[in-house]
Amino acid sequence: MKALVYKGPGQKTLEDRPKPEIQAPGDAVVKMLMTTICGTDLHILKGDVPTCAPGRILGHEGVGVIESVGPAVSTFKAGDRVLISCISSCGKCDYCRRAMYSHCTTGGWILGNTIDGTQAEYVRTPHAETSLYPIPEGVDEEAMVMLSDILPTGFECGVLNGKVAPGATVAIVGAGPIGLAALLTAQLYSPAAVIMIDLDDGRLEVAHRFGATHVINSGDGQAAATVLTLTGGRGVDTAIEAVGVPATFELCEDLVAPGGVIANIGVHGKAVNLHLETLWSRNIAITTRLVDTAATPMLLKTVGSGRIDPSQLITHRFTLDQILDAYDTFGRAAETKALKVIIRA
Amino acid sequence: MKALVYKGPGQKTLEDRPKPEIQAPGDAVVKMLMTTICGTDLHILKGDVPTCAPGRILGHEGVGVIESVGPAVSTFKAGDRVLISCISSCGKCDYCRRAMYSHCTTGGWILGNTIDGTQAEYVRTPHAETSLYPIPEGVDEEAMVMLSDILPTGFECGVLNGKVAPGATVAIVGAGPIGLAALLTAQLYSPAAVIMIDLDDGRLEVAHRFGATHVINSGDGQAAATVLTLTGGRGVDTAIEAVGVPATFELCEDLVAPGGVIANIGVHGKAVNLHLETLWSRNIAITTRLVDTAATPMLLKTVGSGRIDPSQLITHRFTLDQILDAYDTFGRAAETKALKVIIRA
Repeated sequence: MKALVYKGPGQKTLEDRPKPEIQAPGDAVVKMLMTTICGTDLHILKGDVPTCAPGRILGHEGVGVIESVGPAVSTFKAGDRVLISCISSCGKCDYCRRAMYSHCTTGGWILGNTIDGTQAEYVRTPHAETSLYPIPEGVDEEAMVMLSDILPTGFECGVLNGKVAPGATVAIVGAGPIGLAALLTAQLYSPAAVIMIDLDDGRLEVAHRFGATHVINSGDGQAAATVLTLTGGRGVDTAIEAVGVPATFELCEDLVAPGGVIANIGVHGKAVNLHLETLWSRNIAITTRLVDTAATPMLLKTVGSGRIDPSQLITHRFTLDQILDAYDTFGRAAETKALKVIIRA
Repeated sequence: MKALVYKGPGQKTLEDRPKPEIQAPGDAVVKMLMTTICGTDLHILKGDVPTCAPGRILGHEGVGVIESVGPAVSTFKAGDRVLISCISSCGKCDYCRRAMYSHCTTGGWILGNTIDGTQAEYVRTPHAETSLYPIPEGVDEEAMVMLSDILPTGFECGVLNGKVAPGATVAIVGAGPIGLAALLTAQLYSPAAVIMIDLDDGRLEVAHRFGATHVINSGDGQAAATVLTLTGGRGVDTAIEAVGVPATFELCEDLVAPGGVIANIGVHGKAVNLHLETLWSRNIAITTRLVDTAATPMLLKTVGSGRIDPSQLITHRFTLDQILDAYDTFGRAAETKALKVIIRA
């Protein structure tokens, strides 16, 4: 089968690989219908993710059709259309029992990381019963791909951890795909204002279209002052960090109101300065989270009912044969205006 | 009247000052029975608290007897014994309505900071109805002094924010008075283990006596490794920072388990390194808080019922005439083994 393979920092190829087979009783093999590329895949290609070894088929998102299941799988059968979660969970360990599937002791983020992933014609998914979701009839498959990772990540790490609530004031720092996913799902809770902050006016225009009440280009260094003006000097109840660099996290420290939350989504490569000399007395919380996908069933219903349309995030479409072009387009997002790309197998 | 007055960095005197009078309809004037000294008073004397100007009578803790009340005060009358909260709250502003009294727009921590405090024969207390608490009959007045600040601070900022729960594993970094207050109140929630960490074996011995299940002297730099061994490699569900320097906060970052909380109590003077490059995916929360004293009524009942005896924290007793000696004893705690000192007016 065709598969996109990580060959070490800076290198990837589309090559022929053996079709995966059932290895454990709880496995399924899924024939991919479509997948996408995540910012994390770019991190792997930069060499930032040491758990991912050269030779790995990348990808942890997608929808497909069950090809075969192991003998322990009773809730899925060949032919079922399924959503593949980026998080595999055994459903049995201490972390899974607390719905902290991201830290499952035999799962978590393994697809396209420590085992072969979804950017291929077929994928083997461990713990199939608790890591795949049936796709309801009539729901757009492309929209479903957004439920593998980006929509639950924006929602769980940003909106839920950030305690977005009716009447609240929210700032989202970073209007890339993940910040936009937080923006879409924040609106489920009817906040009074959602302020999007980015350096790219094009992305801010998209944010405005997606429902942001205010957009701020932070290029002039005045973003914090502008937010304070907008909030009567208090700051925001929820500051969502959706970039992953020290400057954007520290901007959140400047934005958050007493009693507020900084909800980190960004994947960080280095330490940040936490200004406890001012924050110690401000009654704030800072949260971090690797998405658990515990909210996936709820998001499936929300998308199914039309309350959220995550297919708005899709800007480009490719076939698996064109996946190197897809990476190129996604990797040059500033020029290509790419948000999420769909890759059909 | 006699009063302990801050005269600028490094300087204080016991001097004669006019007896305070009612200034606003909601004020009370309280004749002090006893007060104490807080680590924050030492911070002021070091010049670390710019809001506290020279000439200020220090102190934000104590019990006394109502001398007079303003015309808007109906719930207290002359002769009532009262506990003075370190936090003054109007009960009316947005923050007070959310029980975030520490950020009251006309109150908060003002006593012995922006207005004259309790280390005197009399004190004027604004917002008396929502800042004083009646002392039940039969309750030890010395124990009550511990409810002005230290016990609610350890409880709210450490135990409540840290989500201490039955069966949980807790580490408290710092076995000074505030860490010990967290230790005493953590036991209300029946955690499985409370591990106290300090550099002073004497304080660790006190912690053991107060109910710590494990004590660790961190002088050898192995505290994090020891905690990981004690917790099967996971770390603790709650790490309480009760010192206020970067090293102890960063130790908490090393101790906290996936899904856990770092609850900061310490008053910090500089930024700390927040290692988001490892913590971003660990599903943790970090909380900060200036005590709200929202839990004071509950703690009054807990102490009244004998479930907690905060008078264990009292190591030395003085009169107001001896308050300079009291400061000396409290300031040299490493030698004198002082925890909390009682100063009778």
